[in-house]
Amino acid sequence: MKKISVVFHSGYGHTTNVANAVIAGIELVSDVEPTLISIDQNGDISNEQWSELDSSDAIVFGSPTYMGMASWQFKKFADTSSKRWAAQDWKDKVAAGFTNSATMNGDKHSTLHFMITLAMQHSMLWIGTGLMPSNNKAASRDDINYVGSFGGLMTTSPSDAGVDEAPTYGDIETSKLFGERVARVVRDLMK
Amino acid sequence: MKKISVVFHSGYGHTTNVANAVIAGIELVSDVEPTLISIDQNGDISNEQWSELDSSDAIVFGSPTYMGMASWQFKKFADTSSKRWAAQDWKDKVAAGFTNSATMNGDKHSTLHFMITLAMQHSMLWIGTGLMPSNNKAASRDDINYVGSFGGLMTTSPSDAGVDEAPTYGDIETSKLFGERVARVVRDLMK
Amino acid sequence: MKKISVVFHSGYGHTTNVANAVIAGIELVSDVEPTLISIDQNGDISNEQWSELDSSDAIVFGSPTYMGMASWQFKKFADTSSKRWAAQDWKDKVAAGFTNSATMNGDKHSTLHFMITLAMQHSMLWIGTGLMPSNNKAASRDDINYVGSFGGLMTTSPSDAGVDEAPTYGDIETSKLFGERVARVVRDLMK
Amino acid sequence: MKKISVVFHSGYGHTTNVANAVIAGIELVSDVEPTLISIDQNGDISNEQWSELDSSDAIVFGSPTYMGMASWQFKKFADTSSKRWAAQDWKDKVAAGFTNSATMNGDKHSTLHFMITLAMQHSMLWIGTGLMPSNNKAASRDDINYVGSFGGLMTTSPSDAGVDEAPTYGDIETSKLFGERVARVVRDLMK
Repeated sequence: MKKISVVFHSGYGHTTNVANAVIAGIELVSDVEPTLISIDQNGDISNEQWSELDSSDAIVFGSPTYMGMASWQFKKFADTSSKRWAAQDWKDKVAAGFTNSATMNGDKHSTLHFMITLAMQHSMLWIGTGLMPSNNKAASRDDINYVGSFGGLMTTSPSDAGVDEAPTYGDIETSKLFGERVARVVRDLMK
Repeated sequence: MKKISVVFHSGYGHTTNVANAVIAGIELVSDVEPTLISIDQNGDISNEQWSELDSSDAIVFGSPTYMGMASWQFKKFADTSSKRWAAQDWKDKVAAGFTNSATMNGDKHSTLHFMITLAMQHSMLWIGTGLMPSNNKAASRDDINYVGSFGGLMTTSPSDAGVDEAPTYGDIETSKLFGERVARVVRDLMK
Repeated sequence: MKKISVVFHSGYGHTTNVANAVIAGIELVSDVEPTLISIDQNGDISNEQWSELDSSDAIVFGSPTYMGMASWQFKKFADTSSKRWAAQDWKDKVAAGFTNSATMNGDKHSTLHFMITLAMQHSMLWIGTGLMPSNNKAASRDDINYVGSFGGLMTTSPSDAGVDEAPTYGDIETSKLFGERVARVVRDLMK
Repeated sequence: MKKISVVFHSGYGHTTNVANAVIAGIELVSDVEPTLISIDQNGDISNEQWSELDSSDAIVFGSPTYMGMASWQFKKFADTSSKRWAAQDWKDKVAAGFTNSATMNGDKHSTLHFMITLAMQHSMLWIGTGLMPSNNKAASRDDINYVGSFGGLMTTSPSDAGVDEAPTYGDIETSKLFGERVARVVRDLMK
């Protein structure tokens, strides 16, 4: 059994929806065990959750994009990971990431590139969505990877959409495929 | 009269449509004179066009996003600008940028951040769209800044859309507002 | 009189040294008034300090680079600025930024590009160092812009250097020149 | 036998020195076979070289940083790879990258992040240096990873250093360790 942790912060609940869909995608793959770890509103996780990350084969990072970057709570988690960094405890683990915001672009690429930078400092291996975008004239938000990201998963929740309303079908299906992709890489490509 | 040059490369013509709309936006502002400079398929512009850039108060960069970055032809133009860089000939000019690609995100942020980096090496002043995004549930591609960028203009032309089909109304109107924004900053904020 | 605020977070004091040098550089320019605003260890500034920022002609952002990005305290400040963003209260102000870390590169570029992204969301005008790098064989850390950044100021404080030891002469002189650059742009180029 | 290709462009020869050192590092690892592919001054490689890349288990990208980004020749290579992208021919290969420039920082991070973005579009797995930086007071350019990069290899060749003079010892040793790291990941971590 390979272990995959999804560690994320959500401000209002939309990013939690994405995290749950990523977990659902991981669960589609046999011989892989997912764990969901939620960073609280102070930017903290428990010691047990840190240990869970330490024993995982892969870590998926998740955060909303606020003001062009991951939330401060996610950043506090990243800053606290500096002890693991100093000892290179996470070296050779697989890493991936996702982010949600109200705007189609909204500088989400910026958040993903920070997550990549963080993973590189930890000497992890980074994987993206492995998904081609839906980008022809007929494409709509109900299609796979319509937001259109490669380096990590991007989803969009409109500014006036309640937690039960967004992200919608296309983004949620994309989130599952992303989770499945991470699980297959960990199980099938890594020793 | 303040002079603004729009220097861009277009592979298939969609980015030319955007460049024309940016020019149309600049023309809405009095006491500002726009010039359109097209980088050819070898990545070259003429000596007269280099001189035009040298005498401009502002330079707007434009390129498609191909494989996660500006086209090689735009990059060749940027590499050739290294003589101006060595003498810091473009210091204190205003700079801005735009990019078009088939996918909603499609790593367009990556192209804009390169253009910003280029402008910073030239010691220019960078301005973005100055536009809030259309990001509520009712928003559609006919709305202003639906693609949703701040650091520069992003437009989307679907992969199967002809040059006469894309970008469509919302992106073209956004392009005009972006051109107008650049012109107003140059005329009204700069000495 | 033009007003320039320097708002920064410092974890151990090295970034405070840089902030003070930036202020010293601003003070070299007449008809410009600098204000220093320190983000506390909870990521907060006072209401009076928010008002000071609101009434400034330019805002200079400063933060250490921790784990490949600005500190969480600086990010909390950025997240809190979302009210100003929603009203676009800082539109057309000049912005610039600096960062300090132990390693020569150490992903400092990542922090500066976030600060640029933040400024773009606020529709500000971004300026860099305006300084050429010292990069020949004879160059040393005592020279101007030896760390070698364009988009903003980068300084380096070795991992075992006390607050009274770093950054050293070259970086501090570079910090003053950066402050002076910001002040001259605000006074001489902007209406 | 796992196959690793190093495909790079060099303008003056310094980046060739780095590429050779990366190859030397790969050769330290048994059961791994390296191939060196040089992009010519028109941005082209031969059909045989494209086939070599197609049959490799890992591809290491290399380029100088010019004007804040990979050279236009490297970008032309990347643009030409769009046929492989459309068919996702390089999916699941391992990728890594390196860049050389005259300045310590000099926006090298920007080039590496483009290479990461390129690899993500190809659905590859990205690995960095796996090296901690030398960043204490006693550190010098003779030390490992003094330039201090995580996401990929950065080396520095002073602006007036001949091809036989730079990069110097520390950067060359770092390049070998980077090549060795790539080879060990491909051989020991990947199925």
